[in-house]
Amino acid sequence: MYPRSIQKLIEAFSSLPGVGPRTAARFVFYLLKSSQSEVQELVQAIENLQKEIRLCKFCFNPFQVGEDQDETSLCLICRNPSRERLLLCVVEKESDLAALEKTKIYQGLYFIVGGTVGSLRKEDMKNVRVQDLKARIEKPRQFGLADATFREVILATNPTTEGEATALYIERVLKPLGIRTTRLGRGLPIGAELEYADDETLRNALEGRR
Amino acid sequence: MYPRSIQKLIEAFSSLPGVGPRTAARFVFYLLKSSQSEVQELVQAIENLQKEIRLCKFCFNPFQVGEDQDETSLCLICRNPSRERLLLCVVEKESDLAALEKTKIYQGLYFIVGGTVGSLRKEDMKNVRVQDLKARIEKPRQFGLADATFREVILATNPTTEGEATALYIERVLKPLGIRTTRLGRGLPIGAELEYADDETLRNALEGRR
Repeated sequence: MYPRSIQKLIEAFSSLPGVGPRTAARFVFYLLKSSQSEVQELVQAIENLQKEIRLCKFCFNPFQVGEDQDETSLCLICRNPSRERLLLCVVEKESDLAALEKTKIYQGLYFIVGGTVGSLRKEDMKNVRVQDLKARIEKPRQFGLADATFREVILATNPTTEGEATALYIERVLKPLGIRTTRLGRGLPIGAELEYADDETLRNALEGRR
Repeated sequence: MYPRSIQKLIEAFSSLPGVGPRTAARFVFYLLKSSQSEVQELVQAIENLQKEIRLCKFCFNPFQVGEDQDETSLCLICRNPSRERLLLCVVEKESDLAALEKTKIYQGLYFIVGGTVGSLRKEDMKNVRVQDLKARIEKPRQFGLADATFREVILATNPTTEGEATALYIERVLKPLGIRTTRLGRGLPIGAELEYADDETLRNALEGRR
């Protein structure tokens, strides 16, 4: 329907998460109107991504390579000697890690599990790096963290059905290690109104009163 | 917050229409997980867009260059000798043209005006190619269509406030030419339920009864 080169790019954009063919077409027509230098900037940024970003050998957090001279396989957080190497916080994805880091409250390490299990079916479990997590808790030295001995794993998955299922699954896998696992506190978020809070949140707020 | 190369690409993606920094970040993390060949395909598709797509000199419809050997400045529709060169259909954007073409009912030519005027302010009017439209109706020969003499202009803007304002603005600009302007029919869309139709649609349906 559209010319071939437009159709091709619509298909390529459609593979991005949450992007359907209509949205992809809007992206394409936007780029068609953009200047050559703007488009080149986008192309360059995409190409630099795989060239300049590595995933941390320990926690899978992406980091910039070549900023300092020495070749490293660990991200800035795992490399930082002042982070507590007793606490490990498991998050679903990179943006969850970024949200926690922004608070500057947490001083332990992270592990990005990479997704959620919707159900406890086999194909779902392949989406999450739970066995990788177990291996890192058992033998941190093998993954670049010689001096880590984790005492507690915080399962900071989202308070959604998928997040809950994922946390339960992780707990089950980690059980043989005998390590303490905790969850993030539940209750009313700041600025919430009781009137509009759902039953589950109110129940959590009551049970978790202090 | 994120590594530099990630931040750069988040910014580049954020310039796409309807994409905020969160969505842009999801795109970036998706690409980080993609294979190198998938990413290269996207890069190639973006680069080919500006190389292989031209905008039609007459109607601004994008077309693939180099498919046939002869250098042309007109799109496939404007080049097609069997299209009626008496009818000109003005649409807001490329996807509207594509939607009309899919019906295979309309056999005239098009003009993509490129946007809408929200208000009748000067800066808004720069977004739409209404003066270009006027010039093409007056002197089609100058824009590659030697044998066109338009008898009717269909203002096929969307039935939204902005689309209405744009149609009114175009009508005003074309008035001195004395050419007939029409609008798309209004009423209930197929599959609609009277119960849920808004007042304006029902009014149009009543007035346009046949």
